[in-house]
Amino acid sequence: MVGYAFMGAAHSQAWRNAPRFFDLPMRPDMAAVAGRDAAAVQAAAVRLGWSSTETDWKALVSRDDIDLVDICTPGDTHAEIAITALEAGKHVLCEKPLANSVEEAEAMVRAAQAADGLAMVGFTYRRVPAIQLARTLVADGRIGTVRHVRAQYLQDWIADPQAPLSWRLDKQKAGSGALGDIGAHIVDLAQFVTGEAVTGVSAILETFVRERPVASEHSGLRGTAGAQTGPVTVDDAAIFLGRMSGGGLATFEATRFAWGRKNAIRLEINGSAGSLAFDFEDMNVLHFFDATQPAVEAGFRRIVVTEPEHPYIAAWWPAGHGLGYEHAFTHQAVDLVTAIAEHRQPVPSFADGLVVQRVLAAVEQSAADDSRWTPVQKES
Amino acid sequence: MVGYAFMGAAHSQAWRNAPRFFDLPMRPDMAAVAGRDAAAVQAAAVRLGWSSTETDWKALVSRDDIDLVDICTPGDTHAEIAITALEAGKHVLCEKPLANSVEEAEAMVRAAQAADGLAMVGFTYRRVPAIQLARTLVADGRIGTVRHVRAQYLQDWIADPQAPLSWRLDKQKAGSGALGDIGAHIVDLAQFVTGEAVTGVSAILETFVRERPVASEHSGLRGTAGAQTGPVTVDDAAIFLGRMSGGGLATFEATRFAWGRKNAIRLEINGSAGSLAFDFEDMNVLHFFDATQPAVEAGFRRIVVTEPEHPYIAAWWPAGHGLGYEHAFTHQAVDLVTAIAEHRQPVPSFADGLVVQRVLAAVEQSAADDSRWTPVQKES
Amino acid sequence: MVGYAFMGAAHSQAWRNAPRFFDLPMRPDMAAVAGRDAAAVQAAAVRLGWSSTETDWKALVSRDDIDLVDICTPGDTHAEIAITALEAGKHVLCEKPLANSVEEAEAMVRAAQAADGLAMVGFTYRRVPAIQLARTLVADGRIGTVRHVRAQYLQDWIADPQAPLSWRLDKQKAGSGALGDIGAHIVDLAQFVTGEAVTGVSAILETFVRERPVASEHSGLRGTAGAQTGPVTVDDAAIFLGRMSGGGLATFEATRFAWGRKNAIRLEINGSAGSLAFDFEDMNVLHFFDATQPAVEAGFRRIVVTEPEHPYIAAWWPAGHGLGYEHAFTHQAVDLVTAIAEHRQPVPSFADGLVVQRVLAAVEQSAADDSRWTPVQKES
Amino acid sequence: MVGYAFMGAAHSQAWRNAPRFFDLPMRPDMAAVAGRDAAAVQAAAVRLGWSSTETDWKALVSRDDIDLVDICTPGDTHAEIAITALEAGKHVLCEKPLANSVEEAEAMVRAAQAADGLAMVGFTYRRVPAIQLARTLVADGRIGTVRHVRAQYLQDWIADPQAPLSWRLDKQKAGSGALGDIGAHIVDLAQFVTGEAVTGVSAILETFVRERPVASEHSGLRGTAGAQTGPVTVDDAAIFLGRMSGGGLATFEATRFAWGRKNAIRLEINGSAGSLAFDFEDMNVLHFFDATQPAVEAGFRRIVVTEPEHPYIAAWWPAGHGLGYEHAFTHQAVDLVTAIAEHRQPVPSFADGLVVQRVLAAVEQSAADDSRWTPVQKES
Repeated sequence: MVGYAFMGAAHSQAWRNAPRFFDLPMRPDMAAVAGRDAAAVQAAAVRLGWSSTETDWKALVSRDDIDLVDICTPGDTHAEIAITALEAGKHVLCEKPLANSVEEAEAMVRAAQAADGLAMVGFTYRRVPAIQLARTLVADGRIGTVRHVRAQYLQDWIADPQAPLSWRLDKQKAGSGALGDIGAHIVDLAQFVTGEAVTGVSAILETFVRERPVASEHSGLRGTAGAQTGPVTVDDAAIFLGRMSGGGLATFEATRFAWGRKNAIRLEINGSAGSLAFDFEDMNVLHFFDATQPAVEAGFRRIVVTEPEHPYIAAWWPAGHGLGYEHAFTHQAVDLVTAIAEHRQPVPSFADGLVVQRVLAAVEQSAADDSRWTPVQKES
Repeated sequence: MVGYAFMGAAHSQAWRNAPRFFDLPMRPDMAAVAGRDAAAVQAAAVRLGWSSTETDWKALVSRDDIDLVDICTPGDTHAEIAITALEAGKHVLCEKPLANSVEEAEAMVRAAQAADGLAMVGFTYRRVPAIQLARTLVADGRIGTVRHVRAQYLQDWIADPQAPLSWRLDKQKAGSGALGDIGAHIVDLAQFVTGEAVTGVSAILETFVRERPVASEHSGLRGTAGAQTGPVTVDDAAIFLGRMSGGGLATFEATRFAWGRKNAIRLEINGSAGSLAFDFEDMNVLHFFDATQPAVEAGFRRIVVTEPEHPYIAAWWPAGHGLGYEHAFTHQAVDLVTAIAEHRQPVPSFADGLVVQRVLAAVEQSAADDSRWTPVQKES
Repeated sequence: MVGYAFMGAAHSQAWRNAPRFFDLPMRPDMAAVAGRDAAAVQAAAVRLGWSSTETDWKALVSRDDIDLVDICTPGDTHAEIAITALEAGKHVLCEKPLANSVEEAEAMVRAAQAADGLAMVGFTYRRVPAIQLARTLVADGRIGTVRHVRAQYLQDWIADPQAPLSWRLDKQKAGSGALGDIGAHIVDLAQFVTGEAVTGVSAILETFVRERPVASEHSGLRGTAGAQTGPVTVDDAAIFLGRMSGGGLATFEATRFAWGRKNAIRLEINGSAGSLAFDFEDMNVLHFFDATQPAVEAGFRRIVVTEPEHPYIAAWWPAGHGLGYEHAFTHQAVDLVTAIAEHRQPVPSFADGLVVQRVLAAVEQSAADDSRWTPVQKES
Repeated sequence: MVGYAFMGAAHSQAWRNAPRFFDLPMRPDMAAVAGRDAAAVQAAAVRLGWSSTETDWKALVSRDDIDLVDICTPGDTHAEIAITALEAGKHVLCEKPLANSVEEAEAMVRAAQAADGLAMVGFTYRRVPAIQLARTLVADGRIGTVRHVRAQYLQDWIADPQAPLSWRLDKQKAGSGALGDIGAHIVDLAQFVTGEAVTGVSAILETFVRERPVASEHSGLRGTAGAQTGPVTVDDAAIFLGRMSGGGLATFEATRFAWGRKNAIRLEINGSAGSLAFDFEDMNVLHFFDATQPAVEAGFRRIVVTEPEHPYIAAWWPAGHGLGYEHAFTHQAVDLVTAIAEHRQPVPSFADGLVVQRVLAAVEQSAADDSRWTPVQKES
């Protein structure tokens, strides 16, 4: 694993948990974690359960005892690490967004296509059981033709103008702000659940607070504000309209300025035969409206997605004993290990990540061009 | 009153109820109702409580015993009736949208400005107590500077492609579809609650079902489908981005294709100091997040807006004995009668209605121009 | 109508509304209202829409132009008025609880049985559309055999110890406190929706605040506190266990001390094949769990009970345009007028009211006897 | 650890997780797990992460390298194992209910008092962050004097009469049914959050389905039904009234027959100054009504208990990234290890467990005695 901050902790938990709850065809061995600060990476290794450390990711990537490289660093480093790892014959799991530009993402896809190893991008929310169930219901035709997608990712962690700068607010490192960090998730979820692509967008990006205190330390998403200030170089919020490949309309909204909404990933889909609604604030629940039922007893069904019949659940606890945020990472580890064992392409692939990247690029282009309708570049 | 269908029934209920629950400075006398079909209008008068009938609205408007003309007809007739009534010295209450075009709306505003009578447009949802409370909280600075407006009006009454044609699906009569019928409401609500204007938009309009059965009779919103079909000439759904005059971002979505959402008017506003959320499916409730509270005990407060301290409530029932859809019409009647008695301009005025009309026009223009950013025309 | 306070206002609204929205076989004529204070009853008549007044209910009851007597007075007067009215050949609608004692209630039932007129007791919440739908689903076997009834009626209007005395806190007038005022409703609802009887109870009654300020005026449920204090002679809260005649268990809780719960009538029923849940705070909604559905997609369905297919709704507004508290009174008026026109016994009958009264009596007896199991007296 | 079924898996996860997320004063070493079936316990050890196995718990308890014995077996074995372990100088964590009888529980308390080791009982739900916050708010006087406790634990896992027998339905092993298994939790939660004791009860126990298929295998809570049947010797549901030591009233309901409710632990508390509400179906949320706020803006606050300021949360994920069922077990491990390191008595102690046991005993006594009021035995 490269990187060991918030995402690194989540991934480590997944690697530790997966074999405890699931019957895996291969047992993950947490061989090494890489980070630039020797003392810090050593402490992280102990805490997170890695057997050894490297201070240079290149050393890690070239080790013979490494089969899979798990990339948990900021987006500006994804392409180089992933491509090097793939060229070294490793399997790769790369956090989202796949890269900070379409060009980098394309290079990563080419590297993945040329490589012996398998490559996967970490759109983890796909593996929340309620989202998996949503996908199944759509694929089974239970909501018919998709008419509307309504996707929001609402947070409030920098709604306070005194919240300090972090790498996530620095365009060089993060590529973009709310758009790439959280907007990428709802684009991927909209596409995954509908099984369709976003074909074009009309967008606005906005930075409400353009100057912020410099964080005196890097601990945590929030950090601690110091006396100095520096510029915010990414968007605070992204809103955009879109069209789905099946003819439906979509609205997207990603913001870090929605006071009171902590991690509200909301997805609502209306089809010709029914509707689905999900909110990560109630992550073990999926709401399903079946329009084929008689009007007198039709209603959104609040499905508590914790039955053994539901995706991934049989491995965990009895019904009603809900899962939390981190469990989707465990499911991701399980699915990746299984795909590797079966020599299958895991999903979402780097190509899937590129598709999202192209939507983000179209959003940026539209936002820079008077919100004009901007088609999403197709795979060449 | 001119017209006596769904809206006419709601307005009649309001005129009957207002003096029963509120101390009015003047007592409304339900003098006459007009409609083209003599027998039908006579039956409506008996049922709805009007003392006499006219088969020509011009006759009604010219009667000396009429002080106030209440217009409940389709939008294509609003301008002519309202202007004639104002020129005849009557007060006017006109259903929304104010007109089917900006030009008509401008003419109505000019007529209102020139007239002795007072003119009001029926954006009734403003008078839901929870919405009034929302406006008060924003005006009192409780959520700070508005960052985000998230407005949706979701219905499903023609999600079924076999739902028949009605005048609401005919561009000649209705002017537009979901946009003018329900989109107008959320534009007005967004502007009313924030106290700001929508300054520009980027939009998509869509008609999912372009041919529908002809209704064999005109009873009810749903009607009954016949064998013949005819074209749908209005939009089924409208989605648009906007900017508020205070710098915030807005998303709007109006659709009649959201299965399971019956009359879901949702308004969520995030400011620099807090947030508000409302859903008409739970119309007696307002959710308020106060970001000035300590994080450990902050949360969206579910305010049940049925206390005697709340707007309009003291006239009705004890706390918790909720109001329904029709009560907002009674509040509208109360406020209009009071304004007339006090020789004050009632709100929303025709000018307020024109502002909404200009937003709708900008939406249509943007939708026809590749979703390009389209400023809303300012008052000249 | 006798009495014209809170209940009188609600009943008057119903008599006015019923013929406006429903096709009634007979048209109610609001002939006269009775009250002891001549000026006050005259003002009430004007406000509420009654054609004449009486200062002695006996005069009203003996008038030839009166066919139906609607009793909206405190419980201590119900028996005398109702019996006199029935003996005078009138139809009677009597507010709940039927009486302040089983003996009175029995006398009322005997009078009703002997009379030509028809008698009905005002358990109005039965006529909330969602409750009617609940009854239909149970009667149709959709939840199977009833295992559990969970009934709560939670208010907070005297949670503040400074809330003043009112007749509702006076045993002489009210008979009991939370038990008879609101507990009676949930007993009736539990029996009505299940179609079963409560066969025995184990109970606790409690008065948390035994001395309160004397109200300086009688306006409103809350009144206004004065300097003097007086004793509270009724229960503030009643909690009891029960058994249903079909073998299920029941819990009941009625309190006026649940801060934040304004009029939360909650009914949850678990059967062998499904469950139902209702909360009056969201009165247009019924939740239904159908256990015959596959586990993977089973969930409580949130049925918005505003479709034309739902009880009473076709007469009102389009789907999603919810009803309020008062509408159930209109439904009650409609059903009573219809029963009278068809010479049928309206429900709930006085006998149904007596059944509830006997449950309340058993509750009081058990509470006075160490909560010991106390069978509900059967009809003799 | 003794036992390795559902509870054993949850405890193992906790022991593994605690040092990964929390800074512990001592590092747990998962030395050995005991079970009767050598092959099965060996497989469990590998899967759950234990270094060695024993087929006799007595061997485990006497090992020198064991400092803490974690008891995850059915209730009939708790007393013997715990007492033996304490006498052997070990610390003990014992799953709830503490024992199958008051006598056993008393012996365990005596053993704990006499021992050098520390003893704790596993009422894990106390350590859900929202419950901790509830306790803090009550202790800080934020809801004033407790008037009402409304506690429910609703499940549906044997609502189907074909659900097979398991040890949980066998009085010999489980002691009681819903009462001890889930009722014990809500009694403990009610006492913990209020800081008060249940002083007496009036109760009903019921077994709806008295004969069930014999499970053909023991995997999972549900098992798989075979052809034979056997008797259910415990209660399916327990409902009881109670009084709190501060004068408030309480209602309790524990059932496995509430279709659609999977693990709905609901706790609602009304005090003289406010209210609290919790439902485990939405476990990261606490609802708080503060009656000291102005009526116009008062409402239940939906506190999403995932802020770093909230109990336990800083060790986990950013705000809004909710926890799941298993996390409370990790918190339990953290608190126990910390108490041991600091030579402090951990809570809940065996004495706390005995208090719950006495409430359960009073419930059984009252249920057997016509629901008569039965005081809970005080500590002697």
